[in-house]
Amino acid sequence: MRLSTLIGPDLKEVLREDPDQVRELFSELHPEDVADILGDLEPDEAAAFLARLPAEEAAPIFERLEEHEQEEIVEVMPPESVVQIASEMEPDDRADLFSALPEDVGDALLERLERVDPEAAEEVREIEKWPETSAGHLMTTAYVHVPQVLEVREAVEAVRAFDRESDAPIYNVYVLERNKLLGIVPLRELVLRDPATKLSEIMREPVVTVHPTMDQEEVAKQMAKYDLNVVPVVDDKHELLGVITIDDIVDVLTQEQTEDVQKLGGVQPLEDGYFQTAFWAFIRKRGVVLVILFIEEFFTQTAMRHYDYVLDAIKGAAYYVPLLISTGGNSGGQSSTLIIRGLATGEIKPRDWWRILYREMGMGLALGSALGLIGMLRVKMYPDQSWAFAGTVAATLVGIVVMGCTVGSMMPLLLKRIGIDPATSSAPFIASLVDVLGIIIFVHVAKVLMAQVVAAAAIPH
Amino acid sequence: MRLSTLIGPDLKEVLREDPDQVRELFSELHPEDVADILGDLEPDEAAAFLARLPAEEAAPIFERLEEHEQEEIVEVMPPESVVQIASEMEPDDRADLFSALPEDVGDALLERLERVDPEAAEEVREIEKWPETSAGHLMTTAYVHVPQVLEVREAVEAVRAFDRESDAPIYNVYVLERNKLLGIVPLRELVLRDPATKLSEIMREPVVTVHPTMDQEEVAKQMAKYDLNVVPVVDDKHELLGVITIDDIVDVLTQEQTEDVQKLGGVQPLEDGYFQTAFWAFIRKRGVVLVILFIEEFFTQTAMRHYDYVLDAIKGAAYYVPLLISTGGNSGGQSSTLIIRGLATGEIKPRDWWRILYREMGMGLALGSALGLIGMLRVKMYPDQSWAFAGTVAATLVGIVVMGCTVGSMMPLLLKRIGIDPATSSAPFIASLVDVLGIIIFVHVAKVLMAQVVAAAAIPH
Repeated sequence: MRLSTLIGPDLKEVLREDPDQVRELFSELHPEDVADILGDLEPDEAAAFLARLPAEEAAPIFERLEEHEQEEIVEVMPPESVVQIASEMEPDDRADLFSALPEDVGDALLERLERVDPEAAEEVREIEKWPETSAGHLMTTAYVHVPQVLEVREAVEAVRAFDRESDAPIYNVYVLERNKLLGIVPLRELVLRDPATKLSEIMREPVVTVHPTMDQEEVAKQMAKYDLNVVPVVDDKHELLGVITIDDIVDVLTQEQTEDVQKLGGVQPLEDGYFQTAFWAFIRKRGVVLVILFIEEFFTQTAMRHYDYVLDAIKGAAYYVPLLISTGGNSGGQSSTLIIRGLATGEIKPRDWWRILYREMGMGLALGSALGLIGMLRVKMYPDQSWAFAGTVAATLVGIVVMGCTVGSMMPLLLKRIGIDPATSSAPFIASLVDVLGIIIFVHVAKVLMAQVVAAAAIPH
Repeated sequence: MRLSTLIGPDLKEVLREDPDQVRELFSELHPEDVADILGDLEPDEAAAFLARLPAEEAAPIFERLEEHEQEEIVEVMPPESVVQIASEMEPDDRADLFSALPEDVGDALLERLERVDPEAAEEVREIEKWPETSAGHLMTTAYVHVPQVLEVREAVEAVRAFDRESDAPIYNVYVLERNKLLGIVPLRELVLRDPATKLSEIMREPVVTVHPTMDQEEVAKQMAKYDLNVVPVVDDKHELLGVITIDDIVDVLTQEQTEDVQKLGGVQPLEDGYFQTAFWAFIRKRGVVLVILFIEEFFTQTAMRHYDYVLDAIKGAAYYVPLLISTGGNSGGQSSTLIIRGLATGEIKPRDWWRILYREMGMGLALGSALGLIGMLRVKMYPDQSWAFAGTVAATLVGIVVMGCTVGSMMPLLLKRIGIDPATSSAPFIASLVDVLGIIIFVHVAKVLMAQVVAAAAIPH
């Protein structure tokens, strides 16, 4: 589907022989599509192409490249060209570029930018000083403002001046007094009102403002809740520092989503993509979780060894252990996934715990009974297995699934309550926890339902 | 944090005694916050409050309630009031309401609406005729259009007329000729241009248009890719049917994410929230997956029984099986989660398979070796266990983790390739698959490293 894969090899040839033709071809395309194509070229080819373009044409393409692509291109591009392009980028994309670069490269480039475009360098510093995933880091300093309370006419002039400089979207004009945010005037009002209308008459309070230290996920929630396209970032003194636009929020949602999914899959969230994460960094992200789960699973072996007098007494009983305990893990994983997601979207609150417990125990009973029936039939497919053992397997499954659903649903709520990220109780952690409990349920059910068999066998511990 | 929980009980009292005071109190709040509060009241209390408000004040509150809350309120509210409110709702929210209602209730209300506000009823039918998760169902028919190519002045008049009717956001004016989309003029241009400018001079092609049958997830991808706030929906004849705004896309992203997470957790996606899903519907959504996994796990028992001459020959070997195979499931689950998410975001493509295989086998080797070392130490903590058995456990762990990473990463790519949703190979499915393979690896490693012990024991099969 991507143009790039179709024209890749041809493109490289044409780029070498007649770059101006390519430039003309690309001028028809959206910068996003050109970025897609450049992303598939070698960094030096992409750099050579971008360096030939006027900076104001190169910037909208460059800012749409992936971070790692930008980094690779910066490595091979003359610093003068990088600085020229950076000067033409949108302030938030520019700050993102400098954040993504290795510190020494970024610092050297910022010094160069300082000489060429001191205002742009200042904007980078303003944004970069806030933590990586905060509102301050996400905001752009490209917004229309009028320094005091004037008329619609002047606001239109401010929009005109802004429009000459930037393609950034305009939703509102911000009315400031000594940098303090007095109110906002939606663009729509500027279209509808008489030019002589006083802004003070039509300006309104913003629905929400956010502090630069607010986490980006919380900003996203606020904007989604109130259906906002833009939200102003103001500091403790109510001075306007920048605005956050919805297109960045869509990216935040995707990024937070990826982190959530990785946590649920038992991987510590990666900072970069799958291919960009270095091998040993990857080993650390996965290894920590695997080792913890592995050590938790030691207890399955300990438990089985501890109860060997039961497991050995019933021929073949040990062979049913993986089947039985994995079912507990699966049902518990379902429950914990449902609750973790419900907590994340806000549908479920810790105070709902008893309603959840009631539902989950009911579901555990119904699901466990169904699986117990299937399990019993399975056992009886072996002619040498007794009804007592088939009953033991069935009763164990009921107990294990009820226990799985209970632990799986209560653990995220408990963690949330004591201030730990509920996603920590993801399916693999729940599974390793309920595996041991599953073995204990199995041997105790067997000790009751098959008391004679167990007693008749070897001397108990 | 929510106002509702603080003032809940008091509010109910004041609502009974002095509803007008509450109305005044609420007029200060954003409709979203009022909806939050009403959502916590009993449906009849919320209905009574809404019915007292003028419809144009009630509509923005009502449309922000959750679907199930709307449904409960409609049940207890006089149909005349419902129809009055529906008539004042935004077209897309109105259509969502009718889709959410039970069919007979919805049809009866739509007939009533037809008599009060035929245009609104027509809009509901236009949106409702498209499939539930399609662009057509997501679009709103509230947009500004000018019927032929005129001047900026007339476009401003069209915005003014629209503004009197609706609070829906305005991003563009759509220029139509016999309903066909000729071009768009951004609101910003209307601010900046001379009123006498011809629209034909400043109108532009939309970056993207979507067909009403396009899936909402694809619409979201397109809008995210091109940083769009609004996208026009046009049919085969290029007639404009409606527009999709970014606030709805944010909701789509959250909803699709919930589905993805549920699939990864081994639950078939729920149509409603956790508490709204009926008990038996829930049992079906979870039961199908649990039964499939349970039947897959049968093979662990079959495999252990088949190799009982090995497991019985080595004292305590069977007790290590859950520990060993769960480690394969955990590492495989990590791999499949990473690949499924990468495929969803587009970072990973099936053609990358060999790079992934190479990485995953490398990671499996490193992770398996680390776990193997820990496993060996664990075995040797029992003085009665031999070095041969410790070595068997270590070598098995290496083999199992490499196998887990390989199966876990390749399965989603394979499914994608043959046109099946890769999320089908979620962690629990991978685990049940690699569990059997893990047992086979274990006994074969044992047969090699502990050949004498195995041979010395009972007669082989």
